[in-house]
Amino acid sequence: MTKNNLSDIKKPIEKELEEFDKFFGNALKSKVGLVDLIAKYILKQKGKKIRPLLVLLSARTCGQINERSFRGATLVELLHTATLVHDDVVDSADKRRGFPSINAIWKNKISVLMGDYLLARGLMIAVEGDDFDFLKVVTDTVKRMSEGELLQISKTRKLNIDEETYFRIISDKTASLLSSCCEIGAASATSETDGIEAFRNFGHNLGMAFQIRDDILDFVGSSKLFGKSTGRDIKEKKITLPLIYALSKSDKSRKSLILKYIKDGEKNRHITDVIEFVKEQGGISYAENVSVSFAKKAIESISLFPDTDSKRALMNLVDFVIERKN
Amino acid sequence: MTKNNLSDIKKPIEKELEEFDKFFGNALKSKVGLVDLIAKYILKQKGKKIRPLLVLLSARTCGQINERSFRGATLVELLHTATLVHDDVVDSADKRRGFPSINAIWKNKISVLMGDYLLARGLMIAVEGDDFDFLKVVTDTVKRMSEGELLQISKTRKLNIDEETYFRIISDKTASLLSSCCEIGAASATSETDGIEAFRNFGHNLGMAFQIRDDILDFVGSSKLFGKSTGRDIKEKKITLPLIYALSKSDKSRKSLILKYIKDGEKNRHITDVIEFVKEQGGISYAENVSVSFAKKAIESISLFPDTDSKRALMNLVDFVIERKN
Repeated sequence: MTKNNLSDIKKPIEKELEEFDKFFGNALKSKVGLVDLIAKYILKQKGKKIRPLLVLLSARTCGQINERSFRGATLVELLHTATLVHDDVVDSADKRRGFPSINAIWKNKISVLMGDYLLARGLMIAVEGDDFDFLKVVTDTVKRMSEGELLQISKTRKLNIDEETYFRIISDKTASLLSSCCEIGAASATSETDGIEAFRNFGHNLGMAFQIRDDILDFVGSSKLFGKSTGRDIKEKKITLPLIYALSKSDKSRKSLILKYIKDGEKNRHITDVIEFVKEQGGISYAENVSVSFAKKAIESISLFPDTDSKRALMNLVDFVIERKN
Repeated sequence: MTKNNLSDIKKPIEKELEEFDKFFGNALKSKVGLVDLIAKYILKQKGKKIRPLLVLLSARTCGQINERSFRGATLVELLHTATLVHDDVVDSADKRRGFPSINAIWKNKISVLMGDYLLARGLMIAVEGDDFDFLKVVTDTVKRMSEGELLQISKTRKLNIDEETYFRIISDKTASLLSSCCEIGAASATSETDGIEAFRNFGHNLGMAFQIRDDILDFVGSSKLFGKSTGRDIKEKKITLPLIYALSKSDKSRKSLILKYIKDGEKNRHITDVIEFVKEQGGISYAENVSVSFAKKAIESISLFPDTDSKRALMNLVDFVIERKN
């Protein structure tokens, strides 16, 4: 089965993604040498381009990919890049996409400013194109992303988080941007509000499935070489769905022991115990079921659209997201 | 003479500034407890409100202060607050306006996210009010502010900066926001493009005068208790106008000695020597003259507007900026 291979999913819009690369490269040009240097470094890293892919496939499923679709794709990718640069400062990360992170090379000062610059550049693309509707969508998204992260941090401190709060956090910090990508893509190709809303819902549900899968991988991460390493969230005291479920199913004494383990934080020597606990209590399969149900909702959201190569690609992307091993 | 007292300058729009406080307080409300807590902490600090003051005085000089003027004032103050929060991370500052800085209390992670949140909130105010013209102005400003800071950092590393580059840096990092304040204020009250441009120029020239004065104070800062402490820029290897001029007037051997001193950076034991050098070579009075000439240009920019209490307040603000001792 090759249907869930990312490069196959990209096939129907291969040319358009190349066109996007040009737009994105141009948007990153700056007369300030240092900015240009960092921008070139970012371009060299070639991310997966999931967000531009969503914009362009959504546009094509609703109508024709056009100038506005490319601007939208550039805008969301700039915004995403800005948040990655800030995230790396926030997490003191020293690697990103296999390369040394920007803060590792240029320090925090430059990284914070570069993130602000990328965010502003993204918004300017929309301003220059008179895409007021895009601005409406993305300013709300930037607010939700930062608010979601801040909510997660405050809950992390108290080790106190229920399913409802978890869903709110991942909806804000992750699903909101994917939802915006699909909404922007659709809005670039159609003015039908029902269609645009369908794509906003598609993106939201895809984003929820995506983040839950991401959180599962922290417990079951595959290969040590290429996969996401396990236990990272536990070390950061992030309580995610598999653990929330496992804790809700366990007795009081076991619960307080596990919470004691988690409080150890960075020096945690009980990671394997926590992971085993979650597996035993059925936390993984529960979260997998929830992820799959969001995936189904995503597919339902766009069920009324005709069966085209771009719609099939979107549906394959949903499968890719819930099946991925890293 | 009381004309250059900031509270006198605020007199003509005292009520409107109180009204602004309400707008600003409302804009900072959040359902996320941590965000709300930090927002309240920010509100408690009460900044000088120079930027909302500029918006409101510009609006009143062009016409009537209205809803849009308040939104503009809220937008620029949110944006300014966002940059302060990020600046404190960038500079590892532990104090701001006499209070512990946000990064000192809540750490860098939360500060970076809170800065992003404030920026997004500011932009949302404009989005919600359909003020597309404001968005045009401020997205460009955010880009220029970060680009200006980044240009300064890269020049600082090489200790190589001429007057032209200096002007470009301060125009981007400081004058651009003051210019936007005046432009937004004017645009909220009139649709006459000449008038709006006049206020943009007023703000630019005021901003240039303001930053040059700020850079002078690093050499001649007044009281140790209340004034800006001297030598901070020298320790950070920031080469500003008084020093650029002094270096250009000195012979080769003296120049290389002073540059050697500056390379010492944080541990600099020759700060007094550098300051004395700049004074001797006439760097201070040269920079003062340049600052005054920008101040004059600012006043000229709005010379065609009738002599009202708000215009007089703006002119007094120009004097305040170039005469301030801290």
